Amino acid sequence: MQKGKASIEFSHPPIIIGHGNVVGKKEGDGPLGSMFEQIEEDPMLGASSWEEAESKLQQKAAESAIKNAGLKNKDIRYLLAGDLLGQLIATSFGLMDLEIPLFGLYGACSTMGEAMTLGAILVDGGYADRVVSLASSHFANAEKQFRFPLEYGNQRPFSATWTVTGSGAVVISKSGNGPKVTGITPGKIVDMGLKDSMNMGACMAPAAADTICQHLQDFERCPADYDRIITGDLGVVGKQILEEFLDSQGYDIRDRHMDCGIEIFDSSSQDTHAGGSGCGCSAVVLTSYVLPKLKSGEWKRVLFVPTGALLSTVSFNEGQSIPGIAHGLVIEA
Amino acid sequence: MQKGKASIEFSHPPIIIGHGNVVGKKEGDGPLGSMFEQIEEDPMLGASSWEEAESKLQQKAAESAIKNAGLKNKDIRYLLAGDLLGQLIATSFGLMDLEIPLFGLYGACSTMGEAMTLGAILVDGGYADRVVSLASSHFANAEKQFRFPLEYGNQRPFSATWTVTGSGAVVISKSGNGPKVTGITPGKIVDMGLKDSMNMGACMAPAAADTICQHLQDFERCPADYDRIITGDLGVVGKQILEEFLDSQGYDIRDRHMDCGIEIFDSSSQDTHAGGSGCGCSAVVLTSYVLPKLKSGEWKRVLFVPTGALLSTVSFNEGQSIPGIAHGLVIEA
Repeated sequence: MQKGKASIEFSHPPIIIGHGNVVGKKEGDGPLGSMFEQIEEDPMLGASSWEEAESKLQQKAAESAIKNAGLKNKDIRYLLAGDLLGQLIATSFGLMDLEIPLFGLYGACSTMGEAMTLGAILVDGGYADRVVSLASSHFANAEKQFRFPLEYGNQRPFSATWTVTGSGAVVISKSGNGPKVTGITPGKIVDMGLKDSMNMGACMAPAAADTICQHLQDFERCPADYDRIITGDLGVVGKQILEEFLDSQGYDIRDRHMDCGIEIFDSSSQDTHAGGSGCGCSAVVLTSYVLPKLKSGEWKRVLFVPTGALLSTVSFNEGQSIPGIAHGLVIEA
Repeated sequence: MQKGKASIEFSHPPIIIGHGNVVGKKEGDGPLGSMFEQIEEDPMLGASSWEEAESKLQQKAAESAIKNAGLKNKDIRYLLAGDLLGQLIATSFGLMDLEIPLFGLYGACSTMGEAMTLGAILVDGGYADRVVSLASSHFANAEKQFRFPLEYGNQRPFSATWTVTGSGAVVISKSGNGPKVTGITPGKIVDMGLKDSMNMGACMAPAAADTICQHLQDFERCPADYDRIITGDLGVVGKQILEEFLDSQGYDIRDRHMDCGIEIFDSSSQDTHAGGSGCGCSAVVLTSYVLPKLKSGEWKRVLFVPTGALLSTVSFNEGQSIPGIAHGLVIEA
């Protein structure tokens, strides 16, 4: 039911009964390497293009999540999915073989939050017994689309993040066992006028702050009500901005803030600078690291806030800013 | 509640209490010209780029729909919107000033169907009292992105469609007066392997047929149960394919099939070949022509099926096909 100005608290909290993920070699070499389900040594996944490779990531993650939930494709009523590529081609070509009705979503790197938000609504409301929510990204096609061809070997400032190659998927169900989605706070676009595509953390931090503030107000909670407040891919620059901004609003989250982009790479040895990013970042960290800690009972309740920078080369080259958006979900053990 | 394999029938049918639209000069010169609410003589809408012009279309349509419903921005809980541009920049930059939480959607030209489907779910389920669903397209930025620069003056085959410059928006509410959304059938991706980006009608017709068949099966209805079955932008080529395909499945819809793309232009005098297309096409025909006929009682029940061709220049240039998707909604007087 509606909670406060922008949030929803679920009457029948949907359950995450299965999840799956697949990542690339660099992610497999990182601190979370042992937790990932599938690590692909070949960045092309045997495909003939980077885009097709990302489609294979989505297909593998979706199939794995469905299998891990003990289900078949026919048991899933709807798919909710997206990626960073223009016209969502990783999603279209990755999921068509599943032959399940699809809601294509675009929320930049917040897409996993958007997909789980809408998926949880479909299940809580009785519109579906089971849905799959997923998102993906691929370093090589993101660089090609948003920045420079890989062959160019461009230098990256320390504020830049490294797009995660990977896809994470969850099966959200009305019954079964697993962590529950108990509430959501969909975010609005926040634009502070920032224009540096090599500092996406700074572009997204205001949107993350807005969604987290709105969430805490709507639910009348404080940061201490959560074991972790988990942002998507702010990286080290965005993390500091978020924490300082929230502090100025009276919320100190420093002792329980975690950023998926910071967790996924070891910046000192992996040359990833500010951290990981991309739709896949929060999706694979959720499904490899966060959900197991909720299942084991180590964490009781987290606020999962994937963050997106609404960057496009077209708007960027026309001198526009890079607005941000973030969608929050409460996930409980 | 769930209906059949893929559909939903609403227990508390959401009501379309307001709608608005804005189109370009060419659309204003067409057969529906007198029905549009706002006609922009300047294709740039005073902006400095085609993309920014489309953002202005979205903003105008949203604000008009909200005003026509007798509401203020603050009365709208969520926005559901999308466009054809990579990373949905028309949407991001068009709607940020509304400061309303946004679900960004991509379903190619089926986006209005997707936005209204999810919007109706949010309202029926009690998750929002009022939402705005909208979509847009712009001829000039679509040509630039998907085909050729306008200055190139390329020849267009007769199977090609003309992207509509326009945006249509609806306010969906739990109470009030207006046509009701009584059911939905979200579509799956259908790929028949077609690769001709100058014949999008043929690419989309199989998806439209799939959604319409699924809908009629799920609701145990026949075409005669609808005053009109309204597809989005198949154009004359796609219309014939759809009708023949459905006929082979035992459904003759010829006497009640209407295609928004065919209605919006006069192909004999406007040089638009197979018809109109783009996310804006079905959105502006719905809000100018279809909803008034339901409000006047001339039509009692229609099946509105916006159709999308999941075309991307990247996948297209890599030799991939153009899959289709279509989302169906039952709208009743």
